[in-house]
Amino acid sequence: MNDFTRSDARAFDALRQVTITRNYTVHAEGSVLIEFGGTKVLCTASVEEKVPGHKRGSGEGWVTAEYGMLPRATHTRSDREAARGKQSGRTQEIQRLIGRSMRSVFDLKKLGERTIYLDCDVLQADGGTRTASITGAFVAAQDAVNRLLAEGKISETPILDQVAAISVGIVKGLPLLDLEYIEDSACDTDMNVVMTGAGNFVEVQGTAEGAAFSRIEMDALLQLAEKGIRELVVMQQQSLKS
Amino acid sequence: MNDFTRSDARAFDALRQVTITRNYTVHAEGSVLIEFGGTKVLCTASVEEKVPGHKRGSGEGWVTAEYGMLPRATHTRSDREAARGKQSGRTQEIQRLIGRSMRSVFDLKKLGERTIYLDCDVLQADGGTRTASITGAFVAAQDAVNRLLAEGKISETPILDQVAAISVGIVKGLPLLDLEYIEDSACDTDMNVVMTGAGNFVEVQGTAEGAAFSRIEMDALLQLAEKGIRELVVMQQQSLKS
Amino acid sequence: MNDFTRSDARAFDALRQVTITRNYTVHAEGSVLIEFGGTKVLCTASVEEKVPGHKRGSGEGWVTAEYGMLPRATHTRSDREAARGKQSGRTQEIQRLIGRSMRSVFDLKKLGERTIYLDCDVLQADGGTRTASITGAFVAAQDAVNRLLAEGKISETPILDQVAAISVGIVKGLPLLDLEYIEDSACDTDMNVVMTGAGNFVEVQGTAEGAAFSRIEMDALLQLAEKGIRELVVMQQQSLKS
Amino acid sequence: MNDFTRSDARAFDALRQVTITRNYTVHAEGSVLIEFGGTKVLCTASVEEKVPGHKRGSGEGWVTAEYGMLPRATHTRSDREAARGKQSGRTQEIQRLIGRSMRSVFDLKKLGERTIYLDCDVLQADGGTRTASITGAFVAAQDAVNRLLAEGKISETPILDQVAAISVGIVKGLPLLDLEYIEDSACDTDMNVVMTGAGNFVEVQGTAEGAAFSRIEMDALLQLAEKGIRELVVMQQQSLKS
Amino acid sequence: MNDFTRSDARAFDALRQVTITRNYTVHAEGSVLIEFGGTKVLCTASVEEKVPGHKRGSGEGWVTAEYGMLPRATHTRSDREAARGKQSGRTQEIQRLIGRSMRSVFDLKKLGERTIYLDCDVLQADGGTRTASITGAFVAAQDAVNRLLAEGKISETPILDQVAAISVGIVKGLPLLDLEYIEDSACDTDMNVVMTGAGNFVEVQGTAEGAAFSRIEMDALLQLAEKGIRELVVMQQQSLKS
Amino acid sequence: MNDFTRSDARAFDALRQVTITRNYTVHAEGSVLIEFGGTKVLCTASVEEKVPGHKRGSGEGWVTAEYGMLPRATHTRSDREAARGKQSGRTQEIQRLIGRSMRSVFDLKKLGERTIYLDCDVLQADGGTRTASITGAFVAAQDAVNRLLAEGKISETPILDQVAAISVGIVKGLPLLDLEYIEDSACDTDMNVVMTGAGNFVEVQGTAEGAAFSRIEMDALLQLAEKGIRELVVMQQQSLKS
Repeated sequence: MNDFTRSDARAFDALRQVTITRNYTVHAEGSVLIEFGGTKVLCTASVEEKVPGHKRGSGEGWVTAEYGMLPRATHTRSDREAARGKQSGRTQEIQRLIGRSMRSVFDLKKLGERTIYLDCDVLQADGGTRTASITGAFVAAQDAVNRLLAEGKISETPILDQVAAISVGIVKGLPLLDLEYIEDSACDTDMNVVMTGAGNFVEVQGTAEGAAFSRIEMDALLQLAEKGIRELVVMQQQSLKS
Repeated sequence: MNDFTRSDARAFDALRQVTITRNYTVHAEGSVLIEFGGTKVLCTASVEEKVPGHKRGSGEGWVTAEYGMLPRATHTRSDREAARGKQSGRTQEIQRLIGRSMRSVFDLKKLGERTIYLDCDVLQADGGTRTASITGAFVAAQDAVNRLLAEGKISETPILDQVAAISVGIVKGLPLLDLEYIEDSACDTDMNVVMTGAGNFVEVQGTAEGAAFSRIEMDALLQLAEKGIRELVVMQQQSLKS
Repeated sequence: MNDFTRSDARAFDALRQVTITRNYTVHAEGSVLIEFGGTKVLCTASVEEKVPGHKRGSGEGWVTAEYGMLPRATHTRSDREAARGKQSGRTQEIQRLIGRSMRSVFDLKKLGERTIYLDCDVLQADGGTRTASITGAFVAAQDAVNRLLAEGKISETPILDQVAAISVGIVKGLPLLDLEYIEDSACDTDMNVVMTGAGNFVEVQGTAEGAAFSRIEMDALLQLAEKGIRELVVMQQQSLKS
Repeated sequence: MNDFTRSDARAFDALRQVTITRNYTVHAEGSVLIEFGGTKVLCTASVEEKVPGHKRGSGEGWVTAEYGMLPRATHTRSDREAARGKQSGRTQEIQRLIGRSMRSVFDLKKLGERTIYLDCDVLQADGGTRTASITGAFVAAQDAVNRLLAEGKISETPILDQVAAISVGIVKGLPLLDLEYIEDSACDTDMNVVMTGAGNFVEVQGTAEGAAFSRIEMDALLQLAEKGIRELVVMQQQSLKS
Repeated sequence: MNDFTRSDARAFDALRQVTITRNYTVHAEGSVLIEFGGTKVLCTASVEEKVPGHKRGSGEGWVTAEYGMLPRATHTRSDREAARGKQSGRTQEIQRLIGRSMRSVFDLKKLGERTIYLDCDVLQADGGTRTASITGAFVAAQDAVNRLLAEGKISETPILDQVAAISVGIVKGLPLLDLEYIEDSACDTDMNVVMTGAGNFVEVQGTAEGAAFSRIEMDALLQLAEKGIRELVVMQQQSLKS
Repeated sequence: MNDFTRSDARAFDALRQVTITRNYTVHAEGSVLIEFGGTKVLCTASVEEKVPGHKRGSGEGWVTAEYGMLPRATHTRSDREAARGKQSGRTQEIQRLIGRSMRSVFDLKKLGERTIYLDCDVLQADGGTRTASITGAFVAAQDAVNRLLAEGKISETPILDQVAAISVGIVKGLPLLDLEYIEDSACDTDMNVVMTGAGNFVEVQGTAEGAAFSRIEMDALLQLAEKGIRELVVMQQQSLKS
């Protein structure tokens, strides 16, 4: 009923090849290169022993994220945001999403008055950079927390659960899991879903790029996302054990 | 099973008092004051006979939105973005959402090479400013399109359907429609839903502020939103007839 | 000797219809919608219990103003200053003028170490936005001060006198009071005058837009302004009594 | 009745020593160092053979001004505006004033489609920098126009009259001409007056720094300003003849 | 006479391990990861078929560079320049240096009216990021030029010679080649040298961080740099052959 | 062998006429107008009794520099950096160079916790503005230090040596000392050299603008620079004695 074929003969409900490389760079407390097929994001977790103003004196910590793309991560070169002098609305939306997602699984009290910065920098883009960022940032954050525990700076983990994310969308009428760039460009509906290890929703952001979508389509997309995230959660665990 | 009471004894699935005042100011092609209870947003539609660079020469038009809050629209004064020299990430997210929502019901070819700017400025805030903005901006856009038709600048309407939006959320375990500020501050989950007159989804943005939410809770929220938007769509029609 | 006719057959020395609506919005300590004919400005007074750096530890308070125009307050849409990333020179001139005017009737010692922000936002513009802003901001400031007195935060009013403002100008050789936009565009000389309730000058800003003006013309303009401001001062009093 | 003594035993209605040095630097079409006592401003006039967007294709030219202070022109060092990344409200007010003043004596049609930039940079400040700027910028502009005439680029002068400016103020109850910094800091009322060679007003900007001022005081100040400007106009003529 | 020992028992005149990996990412016309020991820089060359304003219509092309560091490339996290809203003076100096160095071996006429952007982004920093950037950017540029030749867009190479760079410095009195971070922090003199394949100087930038340096020390440093660059030039050739 | 003639029949190894005028303006602790032929730079030294954050509590002082050009210091008018809202990369490079050069001869401990700001503002440009700035800034800094000593704020001079700078370059194959603008525009190699009074190097910045330069050419340039700086050092001494 649909002649659409995915690259590598991927099934409609299959993730791309996912690779998680820990300790990718040496200075950060957590440093993870995550690959969703051709999408490669370097996620570092940096611990600083101070908090932003709205948390000072509260006894609580803070977890926040910043996102960037190298100018030639994309098919055609895009302007460098540092040179242009400001981050685009898209960049801000994405880094706010990553930050909220990470905080959803953190007990900030147990972190103590320190900040974990999660920097997600896209080295190569092929769709799904924000969902790869969230999935990789969690692993980097876990590494940073493990170091805090090992150093005795905290006695109990502030991490309450895992968190991971995936994109889903409807392309030519077909619900697909984990969109590549070419699919993302052609899709009618694009949805990013963030879930905990326990299988609850942290964020659902669905957008009709072309035609508006029905409740039935929405349900199909959510089901795909649940499947994909269950698989990502396992991969995070395996990576952290290795 | 829950001792939470809404202001004005409002039912969990009831909208606040909604008022739509057209021609609120005199210069704009469309000018609507929309009130969702204590939330008051002035939505103007301005037509300009040119398009941004990426549409120039395409024969197509453009529809875009900007959002702002007066500094004392809120309980405590917030900084003026013009004085601070930049729009916050929140402001950019909201105006991008309004713009996408409006474009979802526009046939840009039929608009011709002109731009409709939708300016949504919050005079008073009590929760739901982005959903009030979308609902009011549609009415302002329709007024501007009607003027273009009356002036013979376009021969056919570029508007394909209505669009409206509402917030829903879970407060103390209870799914509620159309959150006020006090409810929004206390909610575990906050979701903004944008739908067409035909009842399809344009945007779904759900965020777990406190605990992550289950699939069952999500379904309950979507159902509430569908009910609220059906009512708003009728109010838009009544306002446009008057 | 001059065939110029004002709208609504207004006399050369007559103000437009002036309306002062207190408590226009609910959150601010003072909130006034002031209308000079088609010009509508929302003036809010916000009290903050801290002062800027140059007043810290001085025992004195501070009174300051910010000014803005909604993008479509004007005949054609103007850029949103927050989006452009800076306030125009005109905006800065106006808000500095409003601030100086308000401080001229304040005893900052009696205010104590707190700040009153006067936000003047133009909802609809038809000439005279800065003079309407000053006249309305005074009423909002008085409401905020009354609340501070009622709450016992200050025991004595820091307000020394009223302050109000009006524009005058020479159009086709004729001195006119309270210029509308169409008159302002055509005028040779434009003067904004700020005076106290006692009838003294706080600011006089006269500009020859076309031909330079003589001393005799200046005297005529000042006389008109004195008349107009005397009337505004009475209206402020009536509004505050109601 | 007043024990106030001016520096150098200057009379209340006397200008400070004024020096106008033409051709102070070599590259500009007009380059004037003007000194009002200890205030030294370098005013250059630069001709560019193009006009800003709003004049393009109009056949008319444009005259505009920019103003700056070297960081240590003042008693204590002030921030460099280029380093801070923006011009202060004060700077913008002043350069807008200089620009309007210069345009008031220019026939932009006769200038042809070219721009004269007047850059007024304060090397040393001791009060009255804006009035010195206007008085010196006129001489620089005249030099630039003379060069355009000599080169045959224009056949008729676009300059309609001279323009000059002076400050006046009330210090300890006494109206004074041409305020020095120490007087300016102490004054109750400060007024900057710009007039043409023919003796008409171009700008009057009076501000009550301390107490509001009466109509009688205003008249006294205007009279002082008229006297001062008459003398400056003669000095401009003498300088241009030399 | 000096008890200073380099890491890995490196000789004073030895380069660190240098690795050049071509085609590191897939989208750019040239994409090189260059490693000088622990310093890792991703250098991409992007071709755009247009030139900046100052070259438009000249028949000539342009070669330019931008430089960035990921926030956690360094020992402690540094601010993201895109978030701060401007590039530091250091960043601008470095990217100007890279751009001049690359242009020194380009015949811009033979490039035709197109631009090559060289983006040098530091993934991990351990001293020498600017010299690694120049050395790697040359290889990326060569790859991009080879593609232009292969595609027939240009018929003759615009590259006149190779260009490479190395740092040298005096640490505790000892001249050293290719400083690591720890050496760079401790050095008295730091010099960056850029040379062509033919062995001539393109840039010499020597700075006394501690004590000023003598002519004899300078000669020793230049000699070390010449040796190091001769080796880098060979490595570039080998990498391009592979 | 070369038909190139310098203006005023200057020898290839001769400085232009150098003039150093101390106390050029009255407010700064040091104020020097330095002229290298047609290049005129006003260098002021300002002492502030506080230090930037990275020195607070260290017991050490700080010395820093800022650089600017008046818009019409140059042959054609350049944009005012304050109006454009940022300093160019060139400006930042120069002011960083001046700052490093000055700090190279300062013992920051002996300065105590205070800052000396060196503002170098170019009134007229004809090549060599950065080297004139350094040479003049030293004299201004010495005057400021002398005042600190005279006032008893410090008991021992923090100045360790003199510092001065000159440009050298190769024009049509000929090494020249102290390039004028016309020579600078035509040169193949341009080098700025900063040296101490004792004859050691503080900075060497050589750039091949046209062809790369050989080691022999470099040696010739350094020799010229050493000669020029020896002469400047004497002139600084003579100026400080007068």
